[in-house]
Amino acid sequence: MSEVYAARRERLRERCAAGGSATALVSRPANVRYLAGAAPRGAVLLLGRGTDLLVCPGPGPAPLGVDPDDERPDEALRVQYLPGTGGDPAVAAADLAAGQGADSLAVEEHHLTVARHRSIRSVVPRLRLAELGSAVEQLRVIKDEEEISCLRIGAEIADQALSELLESILVGRTERHLALELERRLVDHGADGPAFATSVGTGPNSGRRGHRPTDRRVDEGDFLSVCLGATYRGYRSEIGRTFVIGTSPADWQIELYDLVFAAQRAGREALVPGAEYRDVDRVARQVLDSAGYGHGLPPLTGHGVGLEIDEDPQLAPAAMGKLDACVPVTVEPGVHLPGRGGVRIDDTLVVRPEADGGPELLTITTKELLAL
Amino acid sequence: MSEVYAARRERLRERCAAGGSATALVSRPANVRYLAGAAPRGAVLLLGRGTDLLVCPGPGPAPLGVDPDDERPDEALRVQYLPGTGGDPAVAAADLAAGQGADSLAVEEHHLTVARHRSIRSVVPRLRLAELGSAVEQLRVIKDEEEISCLRIGAEIADQALSELLESILVGRTERHLALELERRLVDHGADGPAFATSVGTGPNSGRRGHRPTDRRVDEGDFLSVCLGATYRGYRSEIGRTFVIGTSPADWQIELYDLVFAAQRAGREALVPGAEYRDVDRVARQVLDSAGYGHGLPPLTGHGVGLEIDEDPQLAPAAMGKLDACVPVTVEPGVHLPGRGGVRIDDTLVVRPEADGGPELLTITTKELLAL
Repeated sequence: MSEVYAARRERLRERCAAGGSATALVSRPANVRYLAGAAPRGAVLLLGRGTDLLVCPGPGPAPLGVDPDDERPDEALRVQYLPGTGGDPAVAAADLAAGQGADSLAVEEHHLTVARHRSIRSVVPRLRLAELGSAVEQLRVIKDEEEISCLRIGAEIADQALSELLESILVGRTERHLALELERRLVDHGADGPAFATSVGTGPNSGRRGHRPTDRRVDEGDFLSVCLGATYRGYRSEIGRTFVIGTSPADWQIELYDLVFAAQRAGREALVPGAEYRDVDRVARQVLDSAGYGHGLPPLTGHGVGLEIDEDPQLAPAAMGKLDACVPVTVEPGVHLPGRGGVRIDDTLVVRPEADGGPELLTITTKELLAL
Repeated sequence: MSEVYAARRERLRERCAAGGSATALVSRPANVRYLAGAAPRGAVLLLGRGTDLLVCPGPGPAPLGVDPDDERPDEALRVQYLPGTGGDPAVAAADLAAGQGADSLAVEEHHLTVARHRSIRSVVPRLRLAELGSAVEQLRVIKDEEEISCLRIGAEIADQALSELLESILVGRTERHLALELERRLVDHGADGPAFATSVGTGPNSGRRGHRPTDRRVDEGDFLSVCLGATYRGYRSEIGRTFVIGTSPADWQIELYDLVFAAQRAGREALVPGAEYRDVDRVARQVLDSAGYGHGLPPLTGHGVGLEIDEDPQLAPAAMGKLDACVPVTVEPGVHLPGRGGVRIDDTLVVRPEADGGPELLTITTKELLAL
């Protein structure tokens, strides 16, 4: 694995050099992890001329090496712990960069706070601070097969947790309990943990994106919508499904479900290399819009996933850019009718060329409308 | 409750005025919640001359009002939603402040990123940006009785979850499962959720601060240390206890436990109004130090709790400041012996004057060494 991290750092180094800075300071945790293999709390990565350096806050390396499950940083990296509790690793790293003769340092201005930026400037005034921008986030968009494999395993874990839940009795249980039960099953099946707060919505709460589980109990005739995901080796994906409770769904439920399903399928089918982000959003949104549900839709139809659950790209009306192969994204349209509830259907897929069979569906739980 | 939030904002306004800025922009979520009663994701609070304004990202207020459990902002506040997905609420708020005639705006430089700060400067160049510093964090240190009551209820919930776990069979269960079980019980008893990731350590993992649960199973003769907390109405507290598994603890276990207990008691007894933060740390640390465990201790003995699990003050060797009445803090010394395990004992207490009975212990689970 060490070569993978070294190659990623090399790509970033090339970008920085092209931007005029030979030295870069990476502080955003998911970016540190991507380049270093691990992101100890508060650690920053200094990419310099010499050896790359992971600078960690004190009090030292004790926790590593005790717990075999902790991630370890890439062994090719030099790791330095700051003494005591005082220093900011970003300031220490900038100081080291200056000591190595750097005259300019590119920093992540979208992550570094004004106060930390000022500390660096005051401690190392002769270092010119440049902007790294979202260079690391851009490198992270296209995944390698190792990363996709982690996403695939995570998706399988979520599928399994969900299928077990569906075999149990649901009526009378609260949203909170179902959410906790799903999270327990994710961990049972080998997840590091949930990829995000599991959402379970029943009745009037169903179909709401990001609904926080309440004490409402599942009742006959309800829509039940769930959205969950596993983190596996740091990689996060998501799946969302909507079910109906009881044997015969009402007509409005069938119609709404079919509509959202059609929108979601349109979005999935639009996932081809070269497709504009906003076009994927548009084809899904259009289905809902033409049925009169255009108002009040969530601002996006899907988003990238990876080390974070909500990464680039955004599949949204104003998003600029085109899909590449090996980019994993969600497709998750939904409609929520206030007071009545609604439907969301959410898959994680990897964009693949037509020649390779088209988009690879990671979350394989059925999307038929199940009456439970 | 509305008067409480209005009074907090008024206190902040006075501080800002004293600092030369009549207008302030609060962006750190816990600070927004403290002043506004709720912190919708991404929302910022503008404290101006006229009505205070909560500026939220789009797409609008739909989610509020559907879910009765969602927090609502203080009704005395004006709430504004930005259209679409584009804008940064901080930039929009700064623009509004300038429109109301403000010439200077105090911002939270320890929270605002360099990129957002720059956006504000470029959109509203005539507005002078000043530094609000940690003014809101300082207001948050001393709690009112309503806040303490939320902490007290949260602590009771954690005590209850813990006592139920201790009645069950533990040998053979994994750290992960015990942690999940505790979190489920927290929610069962009315918590909003866990206050932080529940830590369960067995055998060689016991006694490690912030240990992430692994698949190691509880075994006879192990130390078992747990650290958990409930969030109740947004307020977070913590409790940590160490137990021994089996009927007769080994001599080294009894000795180590007694030592950490003595250190923790010394820390608790030092919690009087007017005590220096570092003196509380010192009396606890000294007990461990004089027994030869000074090296490798965690950098702090305790910390404040409230809307965040780790707030001011820090009880640490270099911390400056004195305790006030009505400040809730943890006292949580511990010793971890690599390869063997260790002991941590962690309480949440509220500093109270001697005349009121001294420090109020919120986490009342026994600190006798229980053999389970």
